[in-house]
Amino acid sequence: MSAELTGNVLVAQSGGPTAVINASLAGVIDEALNHECVEEIYGGLNGIQGILQEELIDLAEQSQQTIRGLRYTPSSALGTCRYKMRKDGDFSRVIDVFKAHNIRYFFYIGGNDSQDTADKISKTAAANDWEMRVIGIPKTVDNDLVLTDHTPGYGSVIKNVATTVRDLACDAQAMAQHDMVYILEVMGRNAGWIAAGASLAKRRDFPKDPPHLIYLPEVAFDANKFLDDVAEVLKTEKYALIVVGEGLVDENGNYVSTSSGATDSFGHSQLGGAGDYLKGLIDQHIDGIKTRSVRLGHAQRAAATNASQTDNNEAYQAGQAAVRAAIAGVTDKMVTLIRGDGDQYSCETGLADLSEVANGVKHLPADWVNPDGVSLNHKFVKYATPLIQGEVVVPRENGVPAYIRLSLNKVDKQLPPYALG
Amino acid sequence: MSAELTGNVLVAQSGGPTAVINASLAGVIDEALNHECVEEIYGGLNGIQGILQEELIDLAEQSQQTIRGLRYTPSSALGTCRYKMRKDGDFSRVIDVFKAHNIRYFFYIGGNDSQDTADKISKTAAANDWEMRVIGIPKTVDNDLVLTDHTPGYGSVIKNVATTVRDLACDAQAMAQHDMVYILEVMGRNAGWIAAGASLAKRRDFPKDPPHLIYLPEVAFDANKFLDDVAEVLKTEKYALIVVGEGLVDENGNYVSTSSGATDSFGHSQLGGAGDYLKGLIDQHIDGIKTRSVRLGHAQRAAATNASQTDNNEAYQAGQAAVRAAIAGVTDKMVTLIRGDGDQYSCETGLADLSEVANGVKHLPADWVNPDGVSLNHKFVKYATPLIQGEVVVPRENGVPAYIRLSLNKVDKQLPPYALG
Repeated sequence: MSAELTGNVLVAQSGGPTAVINASLAGVIDEALNHECVEEIYGGLNGIQGILQEELIDLAEQSQQTIRGLRYTPSSALGTCRYKMRKDGDFSRVIDVFKAHNIRYFFYIGGNDSQDTADKISKTAAANDWEMRVIGIPKTVDNDLVLTDHTPGYGSVIKNVATTVRDLACDAQAMAQHDMVYILEVMGRNAGWIAAGASLAKRRDFPKDPPHLIYLPEVAFDANKFLDDVAEVLKTEKYALIVVGEGLVDENGNYVSTSSGATDSFGHSQLGGAGDYLKGLIDQHIDGIKTRSVRLGHAQRAAATNASQTDNNEAYQAGQAAVRAAIAGVTDKMVTLIRGDGDQYSCETGLADLSEVANGVKHLPADWVNPDGVSLNHKFVKYATPLIQGEVVVPRENGVPAYIRLSLNKVDKQLPPYALG
Repeated sequence: MSAELTGNVLVAQSGGPTAVINASLAGVIDEALNHECVEEIYGGLNGIQGILQEELIDLAEQSQQTIRGLRYTPSSALGTCRYKMRKDGDFSRVIDVFKAHNIRYFFYIGGNDSQDTADKISKTAAANDWEMRVIGIPKTVDNDLVLTDHTPGYGSVIKNVATTVRDLACDAQAMAQHDMVYILEVMGRNAGWIAAGASLAKRRDFPKDPPHLIYLPEVAFDANKFLDDVAEVLKTEKYALIVVGEGLVDENGNYVSTSSGATDSFGHSQLGGAGDYLKGLIDQHIDGIKTRSVRLGHAQRAAATNASQTDNNEAYQAGQAAVRAAIAGVTDKMVTLIRGDGDQYSCETGLADLSEVANGVKHLPADWVNPDGVSLNHKFVKYATPLIQGEVVVPRENGVPAYIRLSLNKVDKQLPPYALG
């Protein structure tokens, strides 16, 4: 165990927002306030991009109410970025910023790329004899981080998606006096974790409940099979409710969501995303069916009113655990979530090497998908159901969510300006 | 006041579902159970279409739990239809069904067309010497019924839309490290009531809050002005959040949401709805902007977890009021909602002639739209804010909404089959 290290904390957020990434931020702040070796708690604006530009704010000066409000405010209150550290100078600049503000603890909340960035920053600090501790905090709706049972953000997005499926099912059930197809397009550029989550809308023991068909990026899309699938559902059901991941690909690995001027496998021109593509296939190839499509887009990952309290709690605990580990002398690790062995779901935090997390991608296990390619089996349901339990209570003002905003008074800059690469 | 009329109740739902139309159904059932002159309470499946086919279910035999569950279950539990009464025979058939099942009270929950149908059914009954009472119960997310201050269903859809704007604003605020535009397409084929409701996401005294631009079907769309509007917002804001009603039209009254092969006013081909159309305009005519779009589709009117408790209560009360009026001898009326005069919002039910409701359409008042054509003034905010207060609590099972389903055991048919026109 290292000796106590006194200095300032810097925390930042990166990559796509989630409904609970601010809960992790709240966990970092609340825990850091407990430790006397922490002098100041700074937030870096817009992830590493803002840190390079020395854009820091003082989180300790935010009101108690604001910090509590982070627990139910979706998206990244500090702002985010997709900036890739490009120049060698980028890394030494970060260390200069750390030195200028006596940053001894750096917490980066993000996905694979962010953990990779954190790892490299830590190595650069060591090479520059700057004693500090760097801990990553996992975050992504995509649930694709390795070495953690699941990722904060995932439970909330699939709770929202599964809720939307139940909503749409009520609508479709009432509307379908003739064959109807409802299509719900969800996020997931490379993996079907989110689309798979829609299956949680199905009641156990009711395999014919919606969603009837789930199209995953992991299963090569075949338009003829798709049309057969839809026709098969409509043989026995009043309507077909289809969920499709935006990253649907054909057997050659090309996105089926084509851009302007492209054509589908039948030679028809197509525009738009995967959901519009499927709608087009049905409209053109099956007579007498009304199709209705929904694209939740970025709204699906920001819907705090349908977020999972379990997910929110775990995101908060991951933030706390990061601070505790760093104060105890740990560095170069990412907090992980470890599921207990018991029948009753339990979850505690662990630690994994940043470098190992950075280089892995967790795929949806192939044996969690049924042989039909369009539904998930009990292994997925057992895995995912605990992640969506409990509802986050969002305070309202005038009937709409009373989300908080951080006051963005910046800490005085100590360094000359820096041009981004 | 007429003499007491003993017999059976029939209630049915029509038109597009809402998040609270089942609350009106619950109001009818609960109130009808209080009156000894009501012998049986039947539900007609799929609106008038099912009644023509003698598809009735016994609502009194549903469990207490199921009837309570109607209060938070979105969409039309009895099913709906868009069937237009076509043949003369349709009306006399309805009366035959009424006679066969001793229907003395008919309650039809729906919009303009449904009130028109109810009116004609009542007149046919009178012409056939079938004593009965017919009361309409208002329902529509479109809020376009006349003679009522507002319509059950509207408060919930705009609460959901305004909530989604706040969600998206958090996402956009975090993501916008360069110019970004978020587009949210909402329902409203002929009127901007729903799009206007998005303005409730704006904090009072913060006119620059999102939504920054609202495009209403009532304001002729001009693509050049639109591009100027967007550029103007991006001069001072990190991002522009745009809400557009699906029924946006150009100066000639043609929908801007064009179908395959059509071109926009700049000669570019366009597909999809109004939101995709606006996205296309920006992508093609303003450099360096990322656009992200959301189409809530039918999900917006079924989102019980973002429904308004005020709206839900009023929907329920409208159902109760319909039964009370009918039992008291009233007929050929639709229940209306009457706003109190006081500073504090209050609402009670009234009655209007079915024939007058059937023939009117309530437009968004032109003087509630600011001169810029893309925002609403305080008159709208004052009108709409009370309608979205309070949240409906939706019980969950395994983390997703535990919506109920009616058991659809049909009442024995007494008549020969009937072919729909």
